[in-house]
Parts: sequence; structure tokens; C-alpha cells
Amino acid sequence: MMNFGLVDMRLVSPRDGWPKKGARQAASGAVAILDQARLFDSTEDAVRDLGRIYATTARERGQAKPVINAEEAADATRALWAEGGTRTGILFGPERMGLSNDDVALADAILSFPVNPAFSSLNLAQAVLLVGYEWWKRESGGAAPIAPTRNPTPPPREHVLAFFDFVERELDAVEFFYPPEKAPIMRRNLRNIWHRLALSGQDVQTLRGAFTALVTGRRGGRAPRNPAD
Amino acid sequence: MMNFGLVDMRLVSPRDGWPKKGARQAASGAVAILDQARLFDSTEDAVRDLGRIYATTARERGQAKPVINAEEAADATRALWAEGGTRTGILFGPERMGLSNDDVALADAILSFPVNPAFSSLNLAQAVLLVGYEWWKRESGGAAPIAPTRNPTPPPREHVLAFFDFVERELDAVEFFYPPEKAPIMRRNLRNIWHRLALSGQDVQTLRGAFTALVTGRRGGRAPRNPAD
Repeated sequence: MMNFGLVDMRLVSPRDGWPKKGARQAASGAVAILDQARLFDSTEDAVRDLGRIYATTARERGQAKPVINAEEAADATRALWAEGGTRTGILFGPERMGLSNDDVALADAILSFPVNPAFSSLNLAQAVLLVGYEWWKRESGGAAPIAPTRNPTPPPREHVLAFFDFVERELDAVEFFYPPEKAPIMRRNLRNIWHRLALSGQDVQTLRGAFTALVTGRRGGRAPRNPAD
Repeated sequence: MMNFGLVDMRLVSPRDGWPKKGARQAASGAVAILDQARLFDSTEDAVRDLGRIYATTARERGQAKPVINAEEAADATRALWAEGGTRTGILFGPERMGLSNDDVALADAILSFPVNPAFSSLNLAQAVLLVGYEWWKRESGGAAPIAPTRNPTPPPREHVLAFFDFVERELDAVEFFYPPEKAPIMRRNLRNIWHRLALSGQDVQTLRGAFTALVTGRRGGRAPRNPAD
């Protein structure tokens, strides 16, 4: 829940009482949710202040309710809140048994997940995770919290071109561009490979160093043709 | 994995060996995946036959790789497979430590999840679940495996209209439609409430029975005005 910005947990007559031993240790630091959790004697009591209720279930209950997925639930929840401050609740049943039919009857719609019909076995924690995930995707715009490392600033193009020239000079020296009539296209293909890398200044230095080492080694320790620039 | 149609699990030198004691019991029946799991000594060995590799990580690794989310990974995986049968692998790191930087270096891109920046603590099982979920959403078109119970066949409209007439007669008798000049709009509003229910034949019978009981009770056991039809 806390991974996805959900905080209002309501518990209906938990089997082992509350607070439950070991829950804090298992919460990976999300103790605020445990501390704020509210206890109710019945599902009806738990949902009294809500305007929209979805029941998560994987089984058809014969209650002629609409079935929506977690994306639709997240969209509707956001819309109801934005339009008039309507609060939505999601009912999750206990492990194994799931929600009772009476609990499902309290809901406006059934929330179900697309799973492999040949093997469907989502547990309680997984169902909560998926609901939270779809909720947060919409809240956050779906962006990962880490930004990709951008290449600092692209190097001046002359550095890149000097690198091209250097590599091509060395390749010319070993007659790589053969036959001569193919040389222009071979050069072009090679340059396009380098361009595709969107080389940073550091990348250019690293590659140039690598080529220099190869050339130097091949020549038995002599310096490459154009060690400067 | 099996919930979402994923079957090819590859393990790189698992800490506790393989097969792992208790794994089958914990698999909720998804033992096919355990039985087919392949063991590798290194991540490099595990990915040799793949064409595209994503590394799941929540931390910025300074490796200047693109960062994508699970939806984009699922889309790209499907597209690569459709275009040329290219197989994609997703790397997940061990609990706590996550992937090593060398593992991340094997990947074409980083796969990360939108999580609350104030509290992000997805574990291994959760990361696998979310990747599988996004994959299966695309494979399945996102539909829940259960279909809503449809109202069998809408009842003939004359049954619905007869129900309206019955209710309105009873309400007329207790002077519900007052003042008289408001009666037409009150009737219309009431009929629109019933219409919104998209009543099934069973629903009509149920409601009619309920109204009859109310009317009968109020009259001290006498039959309602129009018990037939």
C-alpha cells in the first residue's frame, strides 16, 4: 500500500486480533499504515462513509454486477474524487476463502484481474499490490522514480569527427576498406554505428584509448599514427 | 509467473542450492515452473540465447542506460518476438542486494516501477508479479477471466410496463403523487429509476413481490389492488 501512496487500511474482525504480532516486523517500515489502521466489526460498518465500493474476487458470484479491472477502478476512483470528493473503498477477502457473498453484495462492481485462465492463484498481498500499482500509475503518470543517467552534454562534434578520422586512418593503414569502390559505403556504415551510440565525451576518450591500445600492441609497442588530438 | 503465462525461469547460482526445500509447497501448484527451471553459474551464461535484456532495479546505477517501465518492457518484448522471434529476458536481483552492477551492465535498459518516492520497498516477488501482470495484460487484452453475469434476456417490455402501472396504482392510492400538477414528472422520475436498473424478468418479479408484501401488510392482510398479471 505504502509503495503506491495508499494509507487508509480498514480491517474487519481480523482472525488473530489487532495489533497482530509480527505485523510491524513484516511491514518493511510501512508502520504508519499499521498504526492508522481502523478496526470494524462488520464489512458494513467499514464502508459506511464510502460512496463507491469495489469487491475484488476471482470467482463469478452470480450477483449480476459489472466486472471491471484495476485500471478502470483506478480511473473511476480518481474521477469520483475529483468530481465531488466521493471516497472509494476496495474490499479484499481473507486468504483462501476470499470475500463472502454478503460482502460482495455490498459492492457496486466486481474488481477482477486479468490472469491466465489455466492457472489463477493470486493471493491477498498480490491483489492489494496490483490495485495499488494501477492507482499509483495514474497518480504519478507512470514514471519510474529514477531518471535515466543522461549523457552529460554531447561533446563538440569536432571531437567525434576527430575520433572517426582517427579510427578510419588506422583502418586504412591495415587495408580494411577493401575493395576501394566499397570504401565510401563502408565508412558510412561505420560512422552510423558510432552515431547510434550517441557518444559522450567520455565515451569518445574510452574508445579512442581502446583503439590506440590495439594499434600500439599490434605494432609491437610503437605509437599509433596520430597520437595527438 | 504462472498467473501471467510466464514459464521460463532461470536461476543463477541460488544461495540455498536447487531444488530448494519448501519451494514446491510454496508454489501454490505452479510446480511446472520449478520443474522446468534452469540453473546457471553466471548471469552471462543465463542470457546467452536472448536478444534483449532488461534489468529491474530501483536504484540509479550511473550506467547511462535508458529507463523503461513494465508496460514499455511488455510492449517491446511482444514487438521483438513478433518481428523476428527475438527472445527477451528480465533480470531480477536477489532480495535485499538486488542486481550487481555487473549484472545491470549486461542489460540493454533498466526496468523500473512507478512507486511512491517517499516509500519504495518492492521485494523480488512483487517485482516479478508486476512484470508478469503487465505482460499478461497485453497478451490477454486486459480482460478479467470472469465475465459479468448478464441479465439473461431482457424481459418483454410489457412486463416492465405492467410493473410500473402496478407500482403507480398503489402509490396513487396513498396519494404519493402530490400535488397533482407535479404527478407527471414524479412518475417520469420514478420510471427512470426503474429503467436505470435494467431489470431482468426475475428482478421484476422480486420487486413486485416486495411491493405487494408492503401493500398487503399495510392493509392488514388484504390483497393488493391488482394481484394478477
